[in-house]
Amino acid sequence: MASLNEHTVKAFDEELTQLRGLVAQMGGLAEQAVTGAIDALKKHDLQLARDIIAGDQRIDDIESEIERLAIRLIALRAPMADDLREIVAALKIASVLERAGDYAKNIAKRVAIIEDHGTIEPLSVLPAMAAITSDMLRDVLDAFAARDAETAIAVCKRDKTVDDFYNSIFRALVTFMMENPKSITQVAHLLFVAKNLERIGDHATNVAEMVYYAATGEHMDERERGDSPLSN
Amino acid sequence: MASLNEHTVKAFDEELTQLRGLVAQMGGLAEQAVTGAIDALKKHDLQLARDIIAGDQRIDDIESEIERLAIRLIALRAPMADDLREIVAALKIASVLERAGDYAKNIAKRVAIIEDHGTIEPLSVLPAMAAITSDMLRDVLDAFAARDAETAIAVCKRDKTVDDFYNSIFRALVTFMMENPKSITQVAHLLFVAKNLERIGDHATNVAEMVYYAATGEHMDERERGDSPLSN
Repeated sequence: MASLNEHTVKAFDEELTQLRGLVAQMGGLAEQAVTGAIDALKKHDLQLARDIIAGDQRIDDIESEIERLAIRLIALRAPMADDLREIVAALKIASVLERAGDYAKNIAKRVAIIEDHGTIEPLSVLPAMAAITSDMLRDVLDAFAARDAETAIAVCKRDKTVDDFYNSIFRALVTFMMENPKSITQVAHLLFVAKNLERIGDHATNVAEMVYYAATGEHMDERERGDSPLSN
Repeated sequence: MASLNEHTVKAFDEELTQLRGLVAQMGGLAEQAVTGAIDALKKHDLQLARDIIAGDQRIDDIESEIERLAIRLIALRAPMADDLREIVAALKIASVLERAGDYAKNIAKRVAIIEDHGTIEPLSVLPAMAAITSDMLRDVLDAFAARDAETAIAVCKRDKTVDDFYNSIFRALVTFMMENPKSITQVAHLLFVAKNLERIGDHATNVAEMVYYAATGEHMDERERGDSPLSN
């Protein structure tokens, strides 16, 4: 019996490790998609945009794989509290990463439309905003891997910066529209790009809250979250 | 042993029925939130907007309840293929409904900002678009409850109409901005409202594909989905 148990425990640990590896892999792809999409936008690089659009399928496929593995683990191994919490967190993180990939794809789809990228001044601020949100994604995945509550809190705090960026870009784009009525269509698309980045920041924050809960068994403090009341 | 088995089967069925009931309840609330938010926008009804913002918590709470129950069912009852597929579908549908509720809350938050609702002509088209998307939500939940593949296909086909609506509203709003530069900020918010409705339609379509799969064991045909290539 002991060896059977050991075997079962070992198989479970291996599958859990596999699950963590898939989440890390998916996270890396989502992070790259976000920075790549903004890069494509800035340089009007249509080929890179197409690559990102095509690459989203891989992100979706890994999500399906994570779902299958997680459900299998829950159904066949009936894991106890701690492990179950981690498996459920992996499932939710995968769903968030899928959304982040979706937002990146959505940004990439707009690259072809934004032809006057060189003249639309507020566009120059988007790469900095994208860098923060993709850093948030990377850090929150590191926090998940290391069950690190402190890093999770740090990610949440950075969401305030992303929101500030978004609000200032929103205003800058609206002002630009007023001054350049002919470019309104293109700039309207940029509003969505900025919004997508802001949403990725929100989702990274949600994941950080889950990671905090999985690591500590407690919900994150309101003050540590630093909620912002209005979203444009 | 037979009575023990019977007891277990009965308890499982009861919990599955409870799960279905929670999904239906959550769907009803999400549907109401969507139509309510657009109603508030059209009438500039700040109280209704506040109610919808506050009511989103209830939708989130039901999602958590569904998650707990679904994970419990999977872990304790180790359900077989068909039931497992339904439980996983319930989990994913709950996550989509949470997003729909979020979009409705997001629309409600913009109500206070859109003060010139009477003069922004394209706004008059939004209620019709909202009606289609909330119908899609209702129908896809009915399809889930009845495991009805035909209704699921019908929901997917309607997404084309929502996309057409969206594209035409996008153009109308951009034109309105060009002609009324002073209202650009307000109209920019309406762009997001239209986008949120379009996303709700997308999500209803995703659920319809899941329902189709749960009902038939096969993936929906490309033609039946009627995908649209570009999203604005």
